[in-house]
Amino acid sequence: MKLKVGLIGLGRLGRVYARDLSSRIGETTLTAVADTDADLAARVAAEFEVPASYRHPEELLADRDVDAAVIVSPTHTHRDVVIAAMQARKPTFCEKPLALSLEECRAMAAAVQSSGAFFQMGFMRRFDPGYAAGKQQVDAGRIGRPVVFKSTSRDPYRPSLEYANPASSGGILVDMGIHDFDLARWFMGDVKTVSAVGGVLAYPEMASVGDIDNAITTLTFADGRLGVVDLTRNGIYGYDITTELLGTEGTVRIGYLRETPVLTMTKNQVAHDTVPYFMERFERAYTLQLQNFAQNVLAGREPPITIRDGVEALRVALAATRACKTGQPVAVDSITN
Amino acid sequence: MKLKVGLIGLGRLGRVYARDLSSRIGETTLTAVADTDADLAARVAAEFEVPASYRHPEELLADRDVDAAVIVSPTHTHRDVVIAAMQARKPTFCEKPLALSLEECRAMAAAVQSSGAFFQMGFMRRFDPGYAAGKQQVDAGRIGRPVVFKSTSRDPYRPSLEYANPASSGGILVDMGIHDFDLARWFMGDVKTVSAVGGVLAYPEMASVGDIDNAITTLTFADGRLGVVDLTRNGIYGYDITTELLGTEGTVRIGYLRETPVLTMTKNQVAHDTVPYFMERFERAYTLQLQNFAQNVLAGREPPITIRDGVEALRVALAATRACKTGQPVAVDSITN
Amino acid sequence: MKLKVGLIGLGRLGRVYARDLSSRIGETTLTAVADTDADLAARVAAEFEVPASYRHPEELLADRDVDAAVIVSPTHTHRDVVIAAMQARKPTFCEKPLALSLEECRAMAAAVQSSGAFFQMGFMRRFDPGYAAGKQQVDAGRIGRPVVFKSTSRDPYRPSLEYANPASSGGILVDMGIHDFDLARWFMGDVKTVSAVGGVLAYPEMASVGDIDNAITTLTFADGRLGVVDLTRNGIYGYDITTELLGTEGTVRIGYLRETPVLTMTKNQVAHDTVPYFMERFERAYTLQLQNFAQNVLAGREPPITIRDGVEALRVALAATRACKTGQPVAVDSITN
Amino acid sequence: MKLKVGLIGLGRLGRVYARDLSSRIGETTLTAVADTDADLAARVAAEFEVPASYRHPEELLADRDVDAAVIVSPTHTHRDVVIAAMQARKPTFCEKPLALSLEECRAMAAAVQSSGAFFQMGFMRRFDPGYAAGKQQVDAGRIGRPVVFKSTSRDPYRPSLEYANPASSGGILVDMGIHDFDLARWFMGDVKTVSAVGGVLAYPEMASVGDIDNAITTLTFADGRLGVVDLTRNGIYGYDITTELLGTEGTVRIGYLRETPVLTMTKNQVAHDTVPYFMERFERAYTLQLQNFAQNVLAGREPPITIRDGVEALRVALAATRACKTGQPVAVDSITN
Repeated sequence: MKLKVGLIGLGRLGRVYARDLSSRIGETTLTAVADTDADLAARVAAEFEVPASYRHPEELLADRDVDAAVIVSPTHTHRDVVIAAMQARKPTFCEKPLALSLEECRAMAAAVQSSGAFFQMGFMRRFDPGYAAGKQQVDAGRIGRPVVFKSTSRDPYRPSLEYANPASSGGILVDMGIHDFDLARWFMGDVKTVSAVGGVLAYPEMASVGDIDNAITTLTFADGRLGVVDLTRNGIYGYDITTELLGTEGTVRIGYLRETPVLTMTKNQVAHDTVPYFMERFERAYTLQLQNFAQNVLAGREPPITIRDGVEALRVALAATRACKTGQPVAVDSITN
Repeated sequence: MKLKVGLIGLGRLGRVYARDLSSRIGETTLTAVADTDADLAARVAAEFEVPASYRHPEELLADRDVDAAVIVSPTHTHRDVVIAAMQARKPTFCEKPLALSLEECRAMAAAVQSSGAFFQMGFMRRFDPGYAAGKQQVDAGRIGRPVVFKSTSRDPYRPSLEYANPASSGGILVDMGIHDFDLARWFMGDVKTVSAVGGVLAYPEMASVGDIDNAITTLTFADGRLGVVDLTRNGIYGYDITTELLGTEGTVRIGYLRETPVLTMTKNQVAHDTVPYFMERFERAYTLQLQNFAQNVLAGREPPITIRDGVEALRVALAATRACKTGQPVAVDSITN
Repeated sequence: MKLKVGLIGLGRLGRVYARDLSSRIGETTLTAVADTDADLAARVAAEFEVPASYRHPEELLADRDVDAAVIVSPTHTHRDVVIAAMQARKPTFCEKPLALSLEECRAMAAAVQSSGAFFQMGFMRRFDPGYAAGKQQVDAGRIGRPVVFKSTSRDPYRPSLEYANPASSGGILVDMGIHDFDLARWFMGDVKTVSAVGGVLAYPEMASVGDIDNAITTLTFADGRLGVVDLTRNGIYGYDITTELLGTEGTVRIGYLRETPVLTMTKNQVAHDTVPYFMERFERAYTLQLQNFAQNVLAGREPPITIRDGVEALRVALAATRACKTGQPVAVDSITN
Repeated sequence: MKLKVGLIGLGRLGRVYARDLSSRIGETTLTAVADTDADLAARVAAEFEVPASYRHPEELLADRDVDAAVIVSPTHTHRDVVIAAMQARKPTFCEKPLALSLEECRAMAAAVQSSGAFFQMGFMRRFDPGYAAGKQQVDAGRIGRPVVFKSTSRDPYRPSLEYANPASSGGILVDMGIHDFDLARWFMGDVKTVSAVGGVLAYPEMASVGDIDNAITTLTFADGRLGVVDLTRNGIYGYDITTELLGTEGTVRIGYLRETPVLTMTKNQVAHDTVPYFMERFERAYTLQLQNFAQNVLAGREPPITIRDGVEALRVALAATRACKTGQPVAVDSITN
């Protein structure tokens, strides 16, 4: 039996999810799509042979042929859509970040709790074969006890200023950092304190929207272990995502630079290409993540990534944002909004 | 409009093709499957929601809902199935090797010619992003004129003796080597002479079926350029496929060893895993190959890999087999059977 | 004409310098050695055919056959020996760290200034072919403007507790970090503010001598650019020194993990060895550093690394030490002792 | 006690040996040098503070202050100089190749035998830390039984036509190949049969001196195991020396491409430099080789590389040369001249 999924949000990632849900994931069929751009919804429905397309999420959630919802609409819509999905008691997957404020998060968490419906948070890196294998090795004790967490995220170029605007993106420490902060919690547990430095170093025009383009955050975990996350918009050479766990008996390093298995060797030089961007790097992780969601719903399993994970990663990101602005260490649990 | 494909042969690769044709390739729908094991055919049809399943290829080819045929049945069946497909004037894709003898090849080539139907030979490496990028760089002149072709194929373990039997596999120089010989022709043009050495070096039991487990073949191309292909069944550490083009202004090296982007660093050692086997290494190439077939048929384009490519790669493999047995150089065009 | 050098201090590095000065560096002869262990001094003198050996640095400095002094005695002796060398007006090279307090540094700097004698500070990484090539590329504009400095230093195992004692080592942020802080200044200029976190995470016994075994320091340079330095005593897998300059048009990464050019490929695994420790990693840098010193003295050139470089790297290290203890950002110029 | 060495031949490598013997190798002093260019001999003697310089090898061999001879004069002189050294009963090291004909070899071998003096053949790769570590791993059984030997030697550019002339170089299969053939014998034992193909593929002017610029040789060892050696003058990207031992339980791969530990990452590309040439690649091996010679002489140990090794590597190279010319497999023991 396949899970009949309704997909809400048809932006770049939404279209990838449409393809995955309709054809790449054996456990799902895509029975409805919704987007505020109704024409787009209709076109995507036609392309992937989806029976129904809607303008409003509520319509989709009311569709009897929709067993479960996948939400990949803009972040500012998450609260209302998640609450509606919970009220409709549809098993729901929601893309990161959960929201831009903890207030919104609390409303969603309350809805999840009162509904009792299945809710799975999206952090695709956990499903990347590299990250999954690294986690498995750490859990298996290959590096002893991990004591330092290091993570680097580099975008190959500046996002559009519209996208970068913290009013919609949350700023670099939320938009990019939330992935690394979730990994930090996944590998090491809760973060107690953060410090951060940042600046507009590569793209002066970033200042016009009120965001920075580089940031470095240090983390102290609840048990005293350490972490560091550095983020940049000027990766230039490519999309470079690397995480390292330094342990008492070894180290695990996750990540790679080369996209295509070709070395080009010319006069005094050896060169290779690089990973272009996140869709190339995490294509398989995105698919595996939705497949995992479907399997969990079908098998009645607990979600591996809960709404609390979404809330707490955001809390660290907001703490880092404050630390970066104030120049002072910030206790993560002091962030309540 | 999608190409309605009938799939003949449902072994390991056949099932992968069933998945690709039914869901991963936007340009195709899988409308029928056939296998001498009719139960298997029925099960696969059910799994991938294929309307029709058959025991005999002829039945599939007679199905009006089959626009094109993909043949991945055992090599010894290729001749009859290809001829039948050509007589039915169905655009056809046939997996490598075309056959085990040139006599069979000639019969198929004659059928292709008299039919006029579209025929595309399967050599998936050409569709691997690594090989495709390497070819593009060579064609773009990045390494000047390529003068030496080097290719290595290593299986991670011995095949079953039943599989390895030259009566069905053609022997290591056909079964494994045909890929490298096709690459040799693709990059460098026709091969004039081959020499080869080989032996049972790792698995003494290979002698019982009359095959060897290691072989090295040198190639002289028609224009005097050189090549070398080494094959082994005892890759042990993993599935390692590497090709190198040495040119007058540089070198292109294609291939990789690491499957998962994780480095595990323990006392005095850095280690990583390896590519397990051909399905992991060439999964995407297989999909892209069938997609290319469908696109060519739909667009009325010529096949990028023709039956002649299948015939000539086999001729080189047979020449190498003879050279290995006789210890003498063999002119490729002296092989006629 | 060769520079006649007297070598003060014959510990592990001192013996390496004895070999370099006596035989590997064409521009020098080793004419005297001194060590508080007079027997050791005599033995080293015999081994390297050095005419004179002394117990006291003053004796060596008074030797008319000593044109220049190389000081590699314990850090706590540097002040007195450097001052004596300056008073004797001998061109002097002093190993890092200059001292453990800025007070000592000031005394030495005053002696250098009043003497007018040549003084070159030792920071061997600047002479490593990798770091030198990286610097050259940055200076040549290959990465545009460098905006983020990242540096990692990992020891393969815990030092002896005696060595680690901050009373003699200065603590991890001085002992290990001073190299990275010097690199930070070399690549990026003066550091304005530092923050740091650290802990005893791998070797509980480190607490008994009052030091930590892991630390992460973030740097804000005078012009707002950023840096991060992470240090660990539990590298375990090997001695790993890596520095990265992230620029507006590219990135330069300096460092390597593999010591011996051998890949060992066994069942499902590819592995290689690692750099054992600093003598293997920086052997050539140490030699090139002393050769550079000799060449500068002989040619009457200015020192590429001045006493101010020694002072300022220490100041950053002391600021980081304070930041780590207080949990608060520290302005580097607030450190005066 | 140090070994007093006389050095015969002061070409490029000779000067490196002069430096090594006079200052880098603790076990030796350089007491005399000889070169047919007497002025050069005098200059080198002055530079390295060598007591005596000569025009004729015989003069050097008659010097009572010369305990042992290192011969690095042109290949065509080896016979006479080795015979003279043996008659003088001086322990002798002779650079590869021993000679260009087996006739010369026999005369030298006879002289070694009748003299009873110590004779060590030069094949520096065996002393390279990479090759030494690889050999150790193979001997320790890390890869089971090695069954295939693969070796590649690539020069970064064409040698001068004068140098390349087979009359003095022996041709590519002797000049370059002898190193790989020696490695083949070292790792695998005696070679029984060789086949070879070659051609003038990159530098048409090579034909004018009667040599080729690319060659591929397959080897069958006495016990049926296999090998392949490919040689090129158009490495272009750098000096690339790689050897691989494929075993029944794993593989060892020796070699590297990157000279400087810097990755330069610019728009969509990661690049590094390459090993320039043999002096950079094997500098340490050359030093270790002479040090080993001195230690063996001083300790009265047997030579690890004998004159027979020099003879047999040449015999394989001559067999390969003939195989390449005739296009037929050649039994190595059929080569007697």
